[in-house]
Amino acid sequence: MGTYEDKEVQKVVGLILKDYEDERTINAIDVHHQPDKDVIINVIDQLLTILYPGYYSDKVFRVYSLKNTMSATIENVIYHLKKQIAIVLKYTDEYASASQETLDEKAKELTLSFMKKIPQIRNCLETDVDAAFEGDPAAKSRAEIIFSYPGLFAVSVYRIAHELHLLSVPMIPRMMTEHAHSITGIDIHPGATIGKHFFIDHGTGIVIGETTNIGEHVKIYQGVTLGGLSTRGGQKLSGVKRHPTIGNNVTIYSGATILGGETVIGDDVTVGGNTFLVNSVENGTLVSAKKQELKFVNKKQGQKKTTKEK
Amino acid sequence: MGTYEDKEVQKVVGLILKDYEDERTINAIDVHHQPDKDVIINVIDQLLTILYPGYYSDKVFRVYSLKNTMSATIENVIYHLKKQIAIVLKYTDEYASASQETLDEKAKELTLSFMKKIPQIRNCLETDVDAAFEGDPAAKSRAEIIFSYPGLFAVSVYRIAHELHLLSVPMIPRMMTEHAHSITGIDIHPGATIGKHFFIDHGTGIVIGETTNIGEHVKIYQGVTLGGLSTRGGQKLSGVKRHPTIGNNVTIYSGATILGGETVIGDDVTVGGNTFLVNSVENGTLVSAKKQELKFVNKKQGQKKTTKEK
Amino acid sequence: MGTYEDKEVQKVVGLILKDYEDERTINAIDVHHQPDKDVIINVIDQLLTILYPGYYSDKVFRVYSLKNTMSATIENVIYHLKKQIAIVLKYTDEYASASQETLDEKAKELTLSFMKKIPQIRNCLETDVDAAFEGDPAAKSRAEIIFSYPGLFAVSVYRIAHELHLLSVPMIPRMMTEHAHSITGIDIHPGATIGKHFFIDHGTGIVIGETTNIGEHVKIYQGVTLGGLSTRGGQKLSGVKRHPTIGNNVTIYSGATILGGETVIGDDVTVGGNTFLVNSVENGTLVSAKKQELKFVNKKQGQKKTTKEK
Repeated sequence: MGTYEDKEVQKVVGLILKDYEDERTINAIDVHHQPDKDVIINVIDQLLTILYPGYYSDKVFRVYSLKNTMSATIENVIYHLKKQIAIVLKYTDEYASASQETLDEKAKELTLSFMKKIPQIRNCLETDVDAAFEGDPAAKSRAEIIFSYPGLFAVSVYRIAHELHLLSVPMIPRMMTEHAHSITGIDIHPGATIGKHFFIDHGTGIVIGETTNIGEHVKIYQGVTLGGLSTRGGQKLSGVKRHPTIGNNVTIYSGATILGGETVIGDDVTVGGNTFLVNSVENGTLVSAKKQELKFVNKKQGQKKTTKEK
Repeated sequence: MGTYEDKEVQKVVGLILKDYEDERTINAIDVHHQPDKDVIINVIDQLLTILYPGYYSDKVFRVYSLKNTMSATIENVIYHLKKQIAIVLKYTDEYASASQETLDEKAKELTLSFMKKIPQIRNCLETDVDAAFEGDPAAKSRAEIIFSYPGLFAVSVYRIAHELHLLSVPMIPRMMTEHAHSITGIDIHPGATIGKHFFIDHGTGIVIGETTNIGEHVKIYQGVTLGGLSTRGGQKLSGVKRHPTIGNNVTIYSGATILGGETVIGDDVTVGGNTFLVNSVENGTLVSAKKQELKFVNKKQGQKKTTKEK
Repeated sequence: MGTYEDKEVQKVVGLILKDYEDERTINAIDVHHQPDKDVIINVIDQLLTILYPGYYSDKVFRVYSLKNTMSATIENVIYHLKKQIAIVLKYTDEYASASQETLDEKAKELTLSFMKKIPQIRNCLETDVDAAFEGDPAAKSRAEIIFSYPGLFAVSVYRIAHELHLLSVPMIPRMMTEHAHSITGIDIHPGATIGKHFFIDHGTGIVIGETTNIGEHVKIYQGVTLGGLSTRGGQKLSGVKRHPTIGNNVTIYSGATILGGETVIGDDVTVGGNTFLVNSVENGTLVSAKKQELKFVNKKQGQKKTTKEK
């Protein structure tokens, strides 16, 4: 049977290999330009150790050697991130045909520029932890938030990816936020701008689009979409402000949808659950959907009452 | 303390072991019939390398040895998939008491039939990548889509699982789509039928039921449910068409719910966000919920206006 | 270039290390009090093997040695869980300054108390598997449910975490349910109380808050929120009953939102999709949103009809 089976297997192998021979996108093979998702996820994990040295570190180290351990981690991140950036630069028009030396030099410059932002990122994250602790009655301690809240994880990865996005690093920022999306169900585009004291509770299903602006002290619940009004324009809309602007001290409850690049939600606004907004809202407003009319039917006696819930 | 503790530990161990002694489902132990989730996830990862050889390959290989590397990967998938199929065939009435030789032969036949579909699956996926690039203003390149879009990941795994489902392979197709569900929040049953040029944006919370039919050039956003009207029938509804039919060139915006096996959404239909549909819609229609009445209260001055948003 | 680059790298390293020198929460470093997320995830995986010995076991073992294999797994869980509990006890006021011996003793007591609950947890899970099989027309076998249903995974981890929560173990229960949340998109707080025969279908986006009470034979679909009415109180609301009470034999369809600690959903109630409830509902009621008014516009001929869907 062996030989017979081998022949059949070889026929299938040949069939699939033959399928690689035309010029489709998914056949493209260019080893030298491939970013490595595993390396990038590893860079994220190490950056989290750098951002929260007391919480994410996976090895037991003594306090007196923190500086040594951290130095090694920081150098390791620089080494790997620089290599990945040199690879993805080839995806840009500017560096498509650059020499390896030029790529390496530019990658080094971008990596160090990014790493210098870490104190500023950590400054933001300290305020995000505060916002989570103050905003959630179920939070028992700040440590619990750092260890287990998916919202903080997604925001931490977003703050990293956003700095790389600002430096025009291609591919990698989106790979990072999609990793966080996969872990948390929270989809924040690296292009969005988000102020300090940002708190996401529960978070699954949240979408924050590429050109969204969010102020400080904003709180967002699960299932909220900050999106575009229509995507019929496709690639023609690339770069256009398509997503809303959210002021300071805004709370957006679960399932609310806010759409459009000209939609501005003012300061101190509260947006109720399941609200659907495509126009701007003035400062200091509480917006909510009018109470849903509900139908209550007694299963045994037939219809009983149709009423707006009070 | 050691001996004392050991005794207590042993008492607890004994208590739990005793709990395995009756005939409940969750006590079932049958080593030889267990599919291995880790092996199946590994098969998925290798199949993705085969589907997108230039993107998912995790080892650096030179272009001239692509054929060798791919041959090895293809043979590896065949070997492991065949073994897993031989195990799960025992879950079917037909093969419950078959000999190992019969199981192996049938598993080989199914595996090779599946592998022959790979060029056809790749043909579909090329159109799915196009649909994502053309449909999303935030997409910077086709490579970015292949590397980081969860929608394409979920659709790729679905297209694999669907072919195995069509061959009546038990258990494994669902294990595959549930793996993709876990990674992406997108829950596509392997039984659903989905045409070419399919694009899922963001995707978290999407549910596409077992008997759904979807045409070509369809675009679906996060939080969309294509589901059954009622599940009170439970197992009695097994095999019945319970989920909707969607035509060609249809866009379904975020949070829309379309239910029922007799619900047919025609060609060229656009379904607005948060729409709840349980009846059919004619070709060329734009369906949307009437604008929600909203209440705007000025937090300082009390109620201000109740109005439909324009 | 090497020396020059080294200097730049060292400057960045120095910059980041300097940033650790003030007293912010995220700078806290206390090696001895850190629970280890990887160990806790490993404990969950081993507990699942103990709960479902025939399904989750990752090694081939013969039936006659089940007792040996399981004994080893149970002892292993006890060893690691005890160590993690001893660590997190330090986060409580009572044990913040306890001696290592006191911590170890208490951790042992809590671990053994928890392990003794396993037969009771398994008793519940057997009914949850039944509920899934009876409730889902797409389920082909109970084995398929155990292998691949994310709802059962989330409920299994919740039932483990809830028992640890009842024993007042800090941190670890929430780390466990957040792990399940990450895998499934289902966010059940370990403090919630949930009766037997509980079935979650699809599940992505479900949120079940800390003080929720759920009866027996309850079925919940994707996107359902059982939440608090307002969180403006923040930490002041800690410990207060903020989430709803759900009776027996209740079905809650996708996207429904039920809020508030005084909201009681009676026995035998069915809550329709996308319903928004902030008041109690009597026994035996079918609650649904009044049919949404829909606008149907023929794309070529302009507006056609505005109508309530029948």
